[in-house]
Amino acid sequence: MDEKYMQLAIELAKKGKGKVNPNPLVGAVIVKNGKIIGQGYHRNYGGNHAEIEAINNSSESVEDSTIYVTLEPCFHYGKTPPCVDKLISSKVSRVVIGSLDPNPLVSGQSIRKLKHAKIEVKIGVLEKKCLKLNEIFIKYIKTKKPYVVLKSAISLDGKIATRTGESKWITGELSRLKVHGLRNELSGIMVGINTVLMDDPTLTCNIKGGRNPIRIIVDSNLKIPIDSKILKTSSNYKTIIATTEKSDINKRNIIINLGAEVLITKSLNNKVDLNDLMLKLGEIEIDSILLEGGGELNYSALKAGIVDKVMIFVAPKIIGGIDSKTCIEGEGIDLLSKAYKVTDLKAKLLDEDILLTGYIGG
Amino acid sequence: MDEKYMQLAIELAKKGKGKVNPNPLVGAVIVKNGKIIGQGYHRNYGGNHAEIEAINNSSESVEDSTIYVTLEPCFHYGKTPPCVDKLISSKVSRVVIGSLDPNPLVSGQSIRKLKHAKIEVKIGVLEKKCLKLNEIFIKYIKTKKPYVVLKSAISLDGKIATRTGESKWITGELSRLKVHGLRNELSGIMVGINTVLMDDPTLTCNIKGGRNPIRIIVDSNLKIPIDSKILKTSSNYKTIIATTEKSDINKRNIIINLGAEVLITKSLNNKVDLNDLMLKLGEIEIDSILLEGGGELNYSALKAGIVDKVMIFVAPKIIGGIDSKTCIEGEGIDLLSKAYKVTDLKAKLLDEDILLTGYIGG
Repeated sequence: MDEKYMQLAIELAKKGKGKVNPNPLVGAVIVKNGKIIGQGYHRNYGGNHAEIEAINNSSESVEDSTIYVTLEPCFHYGKTPPCVDKLISSKVSRVVIGSLDPNPLVSGQSIRKLKHAKIEVKIGVLEKKCLKLNEIFIKYIKTKKPYVVLKSAISLDGKIATRTGESKWITGELSRLKVHGLRNELSGIMVGINTVLMDDPTLTCNIKGGRNPIRIIVDSNLKIPIDSKILKTSSNYKTIIATTEKSDINKRNIIINLGAEVLITKSLNNKVDLNDLMLKLGEIEIDSILLEGGGELNYSALKAGIVDKVMIFVAPKIIGGIDSKTCIEGEGIDLLSKAYKVTDLKAKLLDEDILLTGYIGG
Repeated sequence: MDEKYMQLAIELAKKGKGKVNPNPLVGAVIVKNGKIIGQGYHRNYGGNHAEIEAINNSSESVEDSTIYVTLEPCFHYGKTPPCVDKLISSKVSRVVIGSLDPNPLVSGQSIRKLKHAKIEVKIGVLEKKCLKLNEIFIKYIKTKKPYVVLKSAISLDGKIATRTGESKWITGELSRLKVHGLRNELSGIMVGINTVLMDDPTLTCNIKGGRNPIRIIVDSNLKIPIDSKILKTSSNYKTIIATTEKSDINKRNIIINLGAEVLITKSLNNKVDLNDLMLKLGEIEIDSILLEGGGELNYSALKAGIVDKVMIFVAPKIIGGIDSKTCIEGEGIDLLSKAYKVTDLKAKLLDEDILLTGYIGG
């Protein structure tokens, strides 16, 4: 039964996707005498935590009830008072927790406090699922760098465009809808200047009621055209042009005047140092990035070690061509033993396409 | 119940894989009073057909029994007398058939003969599975050309080797075992001269008790080295070097003296005309080919329209590299609307790898 209620709490937590960043996704369910009396989830950044939502929504007193919560209740004062104190004062009799707080400085503290208050505590119910739910939050809280998802849409033979550069659309509607779902969920979206020059994209989320991710363009030499869709819409949608100290100062001012931000990073081989960029984006609370780069930026990101997850949408078509662009290019590795290892590779059918998902390193 | 016995007949039929070519895979089950009294399958080319095997193996008289057979019983005298006559003389009372004979000249004839003899006939039970079982036979009987399976082992980013050419091994053990299973099942294996020059493979089947496919090397200008493993082993394993009329006659004689066959095809742009090659291989009863080409030959094969099925083994690793070889190269298509369409794309987990299977055209 514990698994059943925790699963429900996980489903509730997911409703906060794209709205709580850089907070974690959390869901809570309150059960008394075998009946669900309260449910809640963390709805948006700064809002009530899931436990408080569930208590507030309860149809009767939560005294002597069991509360299921996907993540260890908070211990510190943040934007809201600590949930652990609210649970104790509400006199719940049992707390079932999915996963511990990933922050090593506070992990387990709430559990000790609950036990001290003679409340029964069970931890680790559907732990793997609860950890996966917050893969973004866990990375961000530990490293203060965003969680990076490398996404690419390829033909069965690994091409992202025909030899003439046509790339719209390789994958089907359902895959593209899923990508816009990712844009809605992740805090930022990142491409390289070549993608802007080739495709002139807007990089917005076209889901009704969705929110647009912050647009990040890696443009070491500020080649971005003034009349690109990105710059033309940068007073409407938050846009960051990442560049190096060497870039032209006049161009920087033009970009700023158009409404975009210019972010100066350290240089690495005369290019934007992606690790430094991640640090700086983390500082402004960007906890997650959808990397929709071309082959060059994707390889640089892998090489810099900033990629956490890969999502490759494979279309049921073959493009061929020795000169057709592939999803990961750059210099490439020389020996197979140095290949970037992908763990937990999984496949999922999306209409006629197949989505391959895996993790880097791990 | 009919489905259950037909499923068993299908399983039996599969035991003949790699041994009956260019005959079809066929299985048969005989049921009397709710009990299986006989089972059989077509074991090897020239041997008894499945129905005869099942009748011969029956534990009691097959009179008034039901026989389940995956393919319409044969009507003509071939290497064996027609099964339809044997069924009639054995006085079975009911015949359940998976799929009709694919040869339009005889399809349905046996059914009419059975009905004329007052035997009850049911057709189309698990028809889709029975057709898939004989996808090779169906193509071969209709076109007299081999069924071609394009197989490639790639990294998640579509590369078949690192930029330095290392390709052993991209995929894991289970995938490689599956490939040797294919070599055991299909009549021929085909690569281009570049693969011979790069990898110097033997192209044999390393499964214990397996049989080696006929090795076919597409070598328009007879560049194959005398000391290649292919030629050094060509007195042991049947080998065909496909070339054009322009190739050097002395080199042809050297190859023949080493034990390989030289097959002269028509030319297309000074290269082996793959369609003509397929016709000539079909004439010598090669009903199926595993194409393990590099990007160049794979693309030529797609362009020539000879590929029926693709099997792409995807490894959980990323190689990258703008110069790394990909599985399908050549000129490639210019517009997405001209991409080769893959139907019924499916994914299957093979340990840490994923096998993507689909059909061309279809």
